[in-house]
Amino acid sequence: MVNAKTSQVGKPTTHEIINELRAVVGDGFLLTEEAQRTEYGHDKTEDYLFLPDVVVKPGTPEEISAILKICNAHRVPVTPRGGGTGLAGGAIPVQHGVVLSMERFNKILNIDELNLQATVEPGVITEVFQNAVKEKGLFYPPDPASRGSCFLGGNLANNSGGPKAVKYGVTRDYVLNLQVVLPTGEIIWTAANVLKNSTGYNLTQLMCGSEGTLGIITKIVFKLRGLPQKNVLLLIPFVTNEEACKAIAAIFVEGIMPSGMEFFEREAAIKTYEYCEKVLNSPVTTKLVDGMDAYLLCELDGNDEEVLMRDAERVMNVVEKFESGEVLFAESSAQKEELWKVRKNISPAVNWYTLTKSDDVVVPRNNLPKLIKGIKEIGTRYGFNTVCFGHLGDGNLHVNILKENISEHDWATRIPEGIGEIFKLTVSLGGTLSGEHGIGIAKRPYMPIAMSEVNLQLMRGIKAVFDPHGILNPGKIF
Amino acid sequence: MVNAKTSQVGKPTTHEIINELRAVVGDGFLLTEEAQRTEYGHDKTEDYLFLPDVVVKPGTPEEISAILKICNAHRVPVTPRGGGTGLAGGAIPVQHGVVLSMERFNKILNIDELNLQATVEPGVITEVFQNAVKEKGLFYPPDPASRGSCFLGGNLANNSGGPKAVKYGVTRDYVLNLQVVLPTGEIIWTAANVLKNSTGYNLTQLMCGSEGTLGIITKIVFKLRGLPQKNVLLLIPFVTNEEACKAIAAIFVEGIMPSGMEFFEREAAIKTYEYCEKVLNSPVTTKLVDGMDAYLLCELDGNDEEVLMRDAERVMNVVEKFESGEVLFAESSAQKEELWKVRKNISPAVNWYTLTKSDDVVVPRNNLPKLIKGIKEIGTRYGFNTVCFGHLGDGNLHVNILKENISEHDWATRIPEGIGEIFKLTVSLGGTLSGEHGIGIAKRPYMPIAMSEVNLQLMRGIKAVFDPHGILNPGKIF
Repeated sequence: MVNAKTSQVGKPTTHEIINELRAVVGDGFLLTEEAQRTEYGHDKTEDYLFLPDVVVKPGTPEEISAILKICNAHRVPVTPRGGGTGLAGGAIPVQHGVVLSMERFNKILNIDELNLQATVEPGVITEVFQNAVKEKGLFYPPDPASRGSCFLGGNLANNSGGPKAVKYGVTRDYVLNLQVVLPTGEIIWTAANVLKNSTGYNLTQLMCGSEGTLGIITKIVFKLRGLPQKNVLLLIPFVTNEEACKAIAAIFVEGIMPSGMEFFEREAAIKTYEYCEKVLNSPVTTKLVDGMDAYLLCELDGNDEEVLMRDAERVMNVVEKFESGEVLFAESSAQKEELWKVRKNISPAVNWYTLTKSDDVVVPRNNLPKLIKGIKEIGTRYGFNTVCFGHLGDGNLHVNILKENISEHDWATRIPEGIGEIFKLTVSLGGTLSGEHGIGIAKRPYMPIAMSEVNLQLMRGIKAVFDPHGILNPGKIF
Repeated sequence: MVNAKTSQVGKPTTHEIINELRAVVGDGFLLTEEAQRTEYGHDKTEDYLFLPDVVVKPGTPEEISAILKICNAHRVPVTPRGGGTGLAGGAIPVQHGVVLSMERFNKILNIDELNLQATVEPGVITEVFQNAVKEKGLFYPPDPASRGSCFLGGNLANNSGGPKAVKYGVTRDYVLNLQVVLPTGEIIWTAANVLKNSTGYNLTQLMCGSEGTLGIITKIVFKLRGLPQKNVLLLIPFVTNEEACKAIAAIFVEGIMPSGMEFFEREAAIKTYEYCEKVLNSPVTTKLVDGMDAYLLCELDGNDEEVLMRDAERVMNVVEKFESGEVLFAESSAQKEELWKVRKNISPAVNWYTLTKSDDVVVPRNNLPKLIKGIKEIGTRYGFNTVCFGHLGDGNLHVNILKENISEHDWATRIPEGIGEIFKLTVSLGGTLSGEHGIGIAKRPYMPIAMSEVNLQLMRGIKAVFDPHGILNPGKIF
């Protein structure tokens, strides 16, 4: 495990400071033992581990305000933590100090069916919220693969997406208003509970995707939609990755708007089938067509069966123009669930197979064939294999670089150079570093590839306005 | 006309500075004569007039960079200007100095049909852009009533909406990436041309709605949609405003998603009918039903006629539960156009009838009945009449306060107090000051009603990061 030393922002968390924090949250919500701190020292990013000095679990915005005032006065770094499912190291306390866990903020405060809004705390698990609104016939579309354990606050901090983003947008598209505790301790609301707002700078959108560096979100007001009643799901095999990518662009040009357009390589499927059988004890029964290197999982949703069938036919007509195999039309909800199970277990499966470095690049849809071809070439040049999958309907490709037999030395030096090449290619194709995972520590060294020093200076300037002493999640993004 | 003196930010625009500016843009694109400066000294906000010292019309981002460097060095205020159709005074040079007109940035640079994106300059008229993408079967939904003369850059600066926002979102929902010249002269791109982005702080969304105070937008990358092929339009009369507002909330609770849900009072219709006949020479033939005080114009769009008819029936079933009159189902495209003509001419009609103060409040949809009732009560208390209309599907009500026989003294003192009452009511109902017109100078004094001093300090801090000497559009928002 990596357990790097980094420079402290200010003073370490002394016993006196820990006692001040204990007086705020109470003995039961402050952890100092090494085993406990280890648990809060990593997320789902590679094998990074950085021990915090102390973990606090506040229960109210006022407690968070008191904690931040103490840490701000003493210049102690504070790393906020949601479900700990991040893939860019956003929740890892790289400068030690305090981990501020949001796990007690787990209440859905209100689902307002008359205004189609909900007010929640940020520690609610995404799937719990999805199900709660579904029970009322409503729909919260953002759907990260980790929805069973990630927190809504973390989704917001990273602006998470998931398969339905292609039709319904990402987390930021559903946020109306936020209660935020600033690093200096003030508690504010960023906006109002309204669908349109041109009242001053958009602090709400500034918080979205800021990875816990600007403030601690303590309440979220989401807008909701009506729940689509029906869907169809197609599994479409292609001879090559590039043919699959070309077909995706063509489907959108036809004016079809799928509610999911997921891509995975054959290699991703094979590893996931094995994982489902051996680890989950739940073998996949759908057979993979021979001679096909890539798959699209295409979902269409709506309220009218006939319209959906007509659109499915249109998709199939487009697909026929490319080198593709026989389309599997999922008949039952059990089969649909199984296909989604494959898709959602790719990332755990690949990480079960070997250590990975996970990238999350995004390009304009029509440049996907060039991107995926280039990534494979870079892999050959730098000596690594990749498993590629992702939300290609919105141009967002997850690239998992496999450690396999690569030496520790090459893994630490040569592979990051190859990743730099992938990012340069992505940017040259009009894209950028992260579509939904964030920058955290993992992609921070590559930020100058995507943006100018002037952009970075603006971001640092904004950071200093919110957090003059730089105590909140230091070492992330830039 | 109001021609207030305000304090200068720094030095006035001396002859030497004007000569420096002339060297940048050339003689033909610099205006100093009073008649010309008068033209650029007002927009569509009441009767405000503030003369700039000079008007420049740059043609390239590099020229803008040079202009801003000169003005920044000399601390000369710069007020950017789009189509001059704003209703909150955002384009008015309240501190004189330089007006920077974007009228030469009028090119659609690229419509990328493969990626469903377009790159445009900010001086393109909204309707020109809408039509250009429509020709390619594509759709740009933001649709402010002033679309025939407003600029896309101004739409962006104010985060404009319009009738289709209820289904398709506002301007900010279509912006992927911006080229911006900072007040200090650097030229940056805010993001990348991608549909999802979690790469650093969201500078793009920070620019949206910042009313020209953070930088000059010189290129915009928009995402586009497929053009819906069909629509139906219903005109639904109601006995009272409140019944109409209640019906709106109920339609959305039913899970119906109209592409337009416009409201207007009988008084708005009467004034518009008169305006269409007397000013536009184009009388309205659709008769207004007697005894009805309010109207909803409800549009549904999509690609399937049957689905649309079914949804229209569902709307009518909801409406029957409220005190409503006979629904007019627009038969022909001529009749649809006429109904939209009425809606889009309400604002010009009311302003033709009398001087107005125009507000643009927004609340959660279900609180509209309380809002509209409260506004009428405030009008009675403060002695003014209002004409109310707007995009009530997303809770956004335009309130035009009529000057009529109110004395100049009361207009300048007592009426603004009443407006303060309207804003306090709005905020108490979970709403805020502006849904799509922006704050500018007109609503600036009321900002503390909507947000805390901490919020305002954050905004001022962000402003200082972008514009350390405060030269860009000073005196606006806060």
